[in-house]
Amino acid sequence: MAAEPIKTNETIVRLKALSKNEAVARFLGMKLTSLTPGRARVTMTVKPEHVNFNGVVFGGVIASLADYAFSYGSNSLNYPSFAVQFNIDFIAGAEVGDKLTAECKVIRSGRRAGISEMKVTNQSGKLIACATGVTVPVNQQ
Amino acid sequence: MAAEPIKTNETIVRLKALSKNEAVARFLGMKLTSLTPGRARVTMTVKPEHVNFNGVVFGGVIASLADYAFSYGSNSLNYPSFAVQFNIDFIAGAEVGDKLTAECKVIRSGRRAGISEMKVTNQSGKLIACATGVTVPVNQQ
Amino acid sequence: MAAEPIKTNETIVRLKALSKNEAVARFLGMKLTSLTPGRARVTMTVKPEHVNFNGVVFGGVIASLADYAFSYGSNSLNYPSFAVQFNIDFIAGAEVGDKLTAECKVIRSGRRAGISEMKVTNQSGKLIACATGVTVPVNQQ
Amino acid sequence: MAAEPIKTNETIVRLKALSKNEAVARFLGMKLTSLTPGRARVTMTVKPEHVNFNGVVFGGVIASLADYAFSYGSNSLNYPSFAVQFNIDFIAGAEVGDKLTAECKVIRSGRRAGISEMKVTNQSGKLIACATGVTVPVNQQ
Repeated sequence: MAAEPIKTNETIVRLKALSKNEAVARFLGMKLTSLTPGRARVTMTVKPEHVNFNGVVFGGVIASLADYAFSYGSNSLNYPSFAVQFNIDFIAGAEVGDKLTAECKVIRSGRRAGISEMKVTNQSGKLIACATGVTVPVNQQ
Repeated sequence: MAAEPIKTNETIVRLKALSKNEAVARFLGMKLTSLTPGRARVTMTVKPEHVNFNGVVFGGVIASLADYAFSYGSNSLNYPSFAVQFNIDFIAGAEVGDKLTAECKVIRSGRRAGISEMKVTNQSGKLIACATGVTVPVNQQ
Repeated sequence: MAAEPIKTNETIVRLKALSKNEAVARFLGMKLTSLTPGRARVTMTVKPEHVNFNGVVFGGVIASLADYAFSYGSNSLNYPSFAVQFNIDFIAGAEVGDKLTAECKVIRSGRRAGISEMKVTNQSGKLIACATGVTVPVNQQ
Repeated sequence: MAAEPIKTNETIVRLKALSKNEAVARFLGMKLTSLTPGRARVTMTVKPEHVNFNGVVFGGVIASLADYAFSYGSNSLNYPSFAVQFNIDFIAGAEVGDKLTAECKVIRSGRRAGISEMKVTNQSGKLIACATGVTVPVNQQ
């Protein structure tokens, strides 16, 4: 059956196009750099406006980058899907000027539910955070 | 022992002062509106720059608001503390123009670990998200 | 439409009957004590065989009781549903002889996904653990 | 400094000895099969008493196996530590007779908090569940 790969490719092309003009990505400085079925990679550079009252990068910013990879990775297999749950563990801090990368890998995909794993690393490859999340497809075929 | 309440009050006063000039709060439009020992309330109004490629509010923005309440609530009892883990369940969507409120309640506080619960609601009181998180004090006395 | 309440009542009656003869419940000593649409209460008494190498109640046993409440609560509204994710925060320890109660409250229910909150308390009403979980209905109507 | 490796070896030896006579492990049929600093592997064979009302293996049993690997892995680096939080994603079901293996890998270890990742697989190497957890050392040196 040739239908599935074609649909997947179309989804990937559509998501890449959508990412060029996405409000929250522009606002937070997040960029989609790689998207294949079940895998997404995104990046951002930490800026002074991402720092909290303790002088370190706000956890919500790191969570946002992981969530951004999550949304592309999970939607690459079941589009459109929405996130139901997201969990993140903070491993190490990040600093202004760091270039962070988040990678998403879908580990369960199906008609009813998807589960993804995300890793956030810095420019030295140091692990900054690990996350997981659950998505549900909007339209079950 | 009068020491503890006095320390707590000092911490609350200090955190309120810090919140007036916090980079990420200004950037995301988040405001601390109430802080008492073990409880924090914060608000934000959803703006067009918070929307993702599906045309709905980016999950990372909702997570950020919950994380913002979490950081004040958990630090109100053990300052300074840092977040180790954060989990969020998405209950309902939010739209541009919505005024979201996140409340944090510390449910376990101690010398070694703290656990907090957060609820995000909109201007109608509708539940948007539930979250929990673990913090660890930087300096154990 | 009278169909929904009748179906719900039938589901509750069926689940209560199933609980009388459930292998894992007998094995772990867990009992369903209350079930209404979207709410379940279960109990267990901690036994010597539930203790780990540190001499305290194994976290997996407390998680099992919360998961047991979760399975009845979530299935009371969408039967059959299966669990996709489960998160638990440990607030206080439990001891042999303690009578633990877990209550489940469904906070999001729908055709595609459900989210539930669970609280585990002991015989004094002390909070032992808080949990949340995501379920997905097997058959979407 | 030679002190750390020696202490770690002593901890590993002590934990292995404790595991020989652990009540909950005997009760659930869980066995520690490998333990090195920051890594633990445990196994169990699914029995008829582990099945829930839907005729599938109870989620709490799978969570218990992951939690069991978690407790040894996290304690191998900071003994004694206790678990504060545990999250599990269910990827695929398990059946009676399946031999399940859970592996724990500590991904953040420190004086104040530890974070571990666990994977549960069956006898065919199929992924059954992924989990993460946070621990806190009892005695900070």
